[in-house]
Amino acid sequence: MEKFELHILGCGSALPTTRHFATSQVVNVRDKLYMIDCGEGSQLQFRKSRLKFSRLNHIFISHLHGDHCFGLLGLISTLNLLGRTAELHIHSPKGLETLLAPMLSFFCRQMTYKVLFHEFETKEPGMIYEDRSLTVTTIPLRHRMPCCGFLFAEKQRPNHIIREMVDFYEVPVYELNRIKNGEDYVTPEGKTISNSLLTRPSDLPRSYAYCSDTIYMPEIAEQIKGVDLLFHEATFANADLPRAKETFHTTAAQAGEIAKAAGVKKLVIGHFSARYEDENVLLKEASDVFPETVLAKETLCLEV
Amino acid sequence: MEKFELHILGCGSALPTTRHFATSQVVNVRDKLYMIDCGEGSQLQFRKSRLKFSRLNHIFISHLHGDHCFGLLGLISTLNLLGRTAELHIHSPKGLETLLAPMLSFFCRQMTYKVLFHEFETKEPGMIYEDRSLTVTTIPLRHRMPCCGFLFAEKQRPNHIIREMVDFYEVPVYELNRIKNGEDYVTPEGKTISNSLLTRPSDLPRSYAYCSDTIYMPEIAEQIKGVDLLFHEATFANADLPRAKETFHTTAAQAGEIAKAAGVKKLVIGHFSARYEDENVLLKEASDVFPETVLAKETLCLEV
Repeated sequence: MEKFELHILGCGSALPTTRHFATSQVVNVRDKLYMIDCGEGSQLQFRKSRLKFSRLNHIFISHLHGDHCFGLLGLISTLNLLGRTAELHIHSPKGLETLLAPMLSFFCRQMTYKVLFHEFETKEPGMIYEDRSLTVTTIPLRHRMPCCGFLFAEKQRPNHIIREMVDFYEVPVYELNRIKNGEDYVTPEGKTISNSLLTRPSDLPRSYAYCSDTIYMPEIAEQIKGVDLLFHEATFANADLPRAKETFHTTAAQAGEIAKAAGVKKLVIGHFSARYEDENVLLKEASDVFPETVLAKETLCLEV
Repeated sequence: MEKFELHILGCGSALPTTRHFATSQVVNVRDKLYMIDCGEGSQLQFRKSRLKFSRLNHIFISHLHGDHCFGLLGLISTLNLLGRTAELHIHSPKGLETLLAPMLSFFCRQMTYKVLFHEFETKEPGMIYEDRSLTVTTIPLRHRMPCCGFLFAEKQRPNHIIREMVDFYEVPVYELNRIKNGEDYVTPEGKTISNSLLTRPSDLPRSYAYCSDTIYMPEIAEQIKGVDLLFHEATFANADLPRAKETFHTTAAQAGEIAKAAGVKKLVIGHFSARYEDENVLLKEASDVFPETVLAKETLCLEV
């Protein structure tokens, strides 16, 4: 299986503590790194997770609250000091470029590389990134300001050729691409060789969904149905449900409900309120609803 | 002795590493906290050092490079979330308020407290803070942009009254303030009682000097003569002297020279370049010139 991993850089909420950094994650898909959110200290946690800046070309910002983007200036500045030349793409809801521009032009005067901002709509799901093997689609969320989660989905890869069978039927090289993509082979004598004899199916495409920050939104289960890994915010415990509603956040049990309704394989919860010294209360409440739940923590790495 | 301590929150230079945070320190004078510089992650280190935000009212920024001020937004934002009401004063060279204003007004919409910016001249030393027991004076430095260090000096405190002697001579209460401040006492019979019989001298005033970032400036020895503790940047080792000059930084040996010429009691060096895995090379080079040298490190606390 090719690499598809999630690195947690920070999983605290608005108030950083001695236990948690502000929100940031890195998704590693076949050694291309994608950052999701960039709270203060993300560049430090990035290094601590032994990730390579040169592999990072895209950053996705869920919404414009400080605990999700105050680390951008430091990161951009560090990449400049390191002499980066590759473009860096930052995807976010409207307004980020305008906000950062004066600081960037003052603090990063002679840029060795370009930072390109891409603003996305937050009302409807939209594909905001695509390459040969991956798509990233926004997941509209409901928070105190425009906010989206992100769905990272591998594309279905072509079938694997069974070398021995292809040799046996003397299939010409120029036919191989068609066969990889599922077509049968017709010999010069007109005999049809079924594709299933010539190929093995490739691995099933995997997917990862990131949902933070948001009030409980059961309707997102539809969009994230069957993902292999779901990160969902679980800022509060059941006892603080009124506070969760008021601040447009989710409880751990509600995160479990979403995971269950969506039939995901695994749930990782994070964005913990600073009030919980021991997050096991959150783990228990989510696990009671959806047993395959783990707690996020700094430098944790999960396979998708 | 009343409290006068230095807490190192971060002592790396422009490129943060897994070993060092960007520059920030806290000076604790009788439980009032003064922050010097505020690199990314300073609020995290502040908590880790078990300091109290409620005791912090003044922040001094040496110059407007990101590694000395990118932590301000996160800190200001956190204090707001905590419901702070006391004013926060930020002292810096010109330009900081203008730079931060758009970000502050977007990210900290409903402020529970006021942030007041005070801009200082960087060419001549100037007293920028004073209270009953302390003054803070700028130390003009030479860097790639306007930059100042800071001299924290305790004021001479009044003498201590010797209770037994005052009772013996039946000194009236209204005379005590004059006597504390060094005057003799004249009895109703016209006899002069020497002040030295009535008081013990108070502790000598202590002082701390912070000098970072700067090219080697032997002339600052004059202004920081005899300080109890000197923090001086020592970004580079001797072998990288040309790089130090080029980037307007100091070597460890040069920091030692300054400490020696100023006759300080103790030198702490920091602002280490990321290139040194082992900073003992810097410690050795500074100690060879000035033996009373220690290396800064995160969460280190030194008595002044």
